[in-house]
Amino acid sequence: MVLLDEISARIQPLDEGAMQAARTRHDQLTKPPGSLGRLEELSIRLAGITGVPCPVLRRKTVIVMAGDHGVTAEAVSAYPSAVTAQMVMNFLRGGAAINVLARQAGARVLVVDAGVASELGSHPGLLQRKVACGTANIAHGPAMSRAAALQAINAGIEAVTLEIERGVDLLAVGEMGIGNTTPSAAIAAALTGVSIDTLVGRGTGIDDVTLAHKIDIVTQALEVNQPDQRDPLDVLAKLGGFEIAALVGAILAAAAGRLPVMLDGYITGAAALVAVGIAPQVQPYLLASHRSHEQGHQAILKALGLQPLLELEMRLGEGTGAVLTMYLVEAAVRLLGEMATFTEAGVSDRG
Amino acid sequence: MVLLDEISARIQPLDEGAMQAARTRHDQLTKPPGSLGRLEELSIRLAGITGVPCPVLRRKTVIVMAGDHGVTAEAVSAYPSAVTAQMVMNFLRGGAAINVLARQAGARVLVVDAGVASELGSHPGLLQRKVACGTANIAHGPAMSRAAALQAINAGIEAVTLEIERGVDLLAVGEMGIGNTTPSAAIAAALTGVSIDTLVGRGTGIDDVTLAHKIDIVTQALEVNQPDQRDPLDVLAKLGGFEIAALVGAILAAAAGRLPVMLDGYITGAAALVAVGIAPQVQPYLLASHRSHEQGHQAILKALGLQPLLELEMRLGEGTGAVLTMYLVEAAVRLLGEMATFTEAGVSDRG
Repeated sequence: MVLLDEISARIQPLDEGAMQAARTRHDQLTKPPGSLGRLEELSIRLAGITGVPCPVLRRKTVIVMAGDHGVTAEAVSAYPSAVTAQMVMNFLRGGAAINVLARQAGARVLVVDAGVASELGSHPGLLQRKVACGTANIAHGPAMSRAAALQAINAGIEAVTLEIERGVDLLAVGEMGIGNTTPSAAIAAALTGVSIDTLVGRGTGIDDVTLAHKIDIVTQALEVNQPDQRDPLDVLAKLGGFEIAALVGAILAAAAGRLPVMLDGYITGAAALVAVGIAPQVQPYLLASHRSHEQGHQAILKALGLQPLLELEMRLGEGTGAVLTMYLVEAAVRLLGEMATFTEAGVSDRG
Repeated sequence: MVLLDEISARIQPLDEGAMQAARTRHDQLTKPPGSLGRLEELSIRLAGITGVPCPVLRRKTVIVMAGDHGVTAEAVSAYPSAVTAQMVMNFLRGGAAINVLARQAGARVLVVDAGVASELGSHPGLLQRKVACGTANIAHGPAMSRAAALQAINAGIEAVTLEIERGVDLLAVGEMGIGNTTPSAAIAAALTGVSIDTLVGRGTGIDDVTLAHKIDIVTQALEVNQPDQRDPLDVLAKLGGFEIAALVGAILAAAAGRLPVMLDGYITGAAALVAVGIAPQVQPYLLASHRSHEQGHQAILKALGLQPLLELEMRLGEGTGAVLTMYLVEAAVRLLGEMATFTEAGVSDRG
């Protein structure tokens, strides 16, 4: 608990001075005021997060947290549990969507094994911090103990701390875990009070019958576990999973290090709800990349007070939406830093 | 008229074979089917446009058409006409938003002087094809003759033909011309029948009084000129401007060369309406980058049958939205070309 408390206590408000300097510069650049729309807001936010009036983003990393879920025994996913480990191997060989998008973005991919069901072996791109071989089945009891949740949170804090030491300027978070829209829906229901029907979606692509069953399983998980809404760590431990807990730690550690953190879709959103529950001051450090096609993501974004930058009907996870959106963040800060002013360019301002 | 007819006749339907091959490959890639959402559709469209099942986009260019407008005499813009030439010089020195975004995208910037009011001198990044020093005032008569419109269209055809000879794989189009939302609104009203009130917006940022005046001026331009809706070239010549005509030529020439063409905002949208009016078979070659904050852009996109990829409240023009969105097109084709299949990666498909 010490590390989590320490990290939370280190999260500072955004730097108002840097934001004001960015706003002032924007009004001097050769464009009608406000004409870059949300890219202007975004660059000002980046100034506030980093504390630098003209931030420069050189190093980018996407951290992909992986874990398995006991609740897959209830047949809530279109894919077998074994796919989690198979996809992690795909990430490490560079063949997955997240690898393609990270190469395009010039971002490093770091995979963290927070609780994959099988042994993965060692690999330079893999941080091995397995808490257990998958969570327990939340339909029948808690996903993990409170101590295990803290251990997985610490894994996320450690991963981000290592990246900060390597000089990362922009972080994206993603995840892999067959079945993990189920615990995410349960967590979101517990923390937001939004109805389970609204929050449960088709994940990787389940049919109507499985969807109805998934709603029943989430309902059962909440009844069986009786998570305490006022205690986000209790909600996290009872409903899971290990990769979600690691995401919570990563998000908090990023904010503590003034590192902008780009969320991906539904699961990272559920993790952000827990992080904001633990430390509300983390909210301004969160960047929403895209609105996922997964039903319920909008309710999570609304609860987080975030408006996504992209809406492309993506629902793949892995961090794909987050890494794709890094480009827009870079564009925003480059425009702020590199455009000529009216004076420099000899352009007449408004008549 | 010969060149325009020739170019229009060369525009072929999309390549269905290449699209089907791209669809088949998508279903074999390591992701739930359809989970990349609009990026999947986009990559399939690119296959159809280029005729290549796995297209590769190496060379990118943004062509920025510039021209001045006699209607600025009616005080319809927040900036003086002289800003057109000043901003062209800013483009050529690399200080404008389009330059920053083109550097980030790795795209070449080519500026075409289709009708700027002052002499610009020679520059390696400038194609000098001035038809006249600005259009006539459409509030009192036609912007230009039919012959002048064809001359400006030819300038656009020539610019794109040169880029195709250089090996360009992806084209963005943009524009610079103080006052040009006024002729664009008039063209859109003439070609779509949408009300002038819906189509006229604040451009670079005019106040309520100027907005009401701008609506009156567009209404007057349509009454004075009586453009023939069934003759898009008549609409273009009577309502202008030179940069809009050059955009029409560029769009048609891109489609004729199976080159994907990314539209920017309101003005390029108005040009696309003219291009589709001349040659309806150009439509599937058009990519809509963003929904501009300019009121009326949505009506233009709807008339074109296009759904934009981004919505960031941008309203700058220059091609900024188009160049920003090139990244998503590249992401789409990279995912199609570079992701591993289930078989290659040893990942289990749906259970």
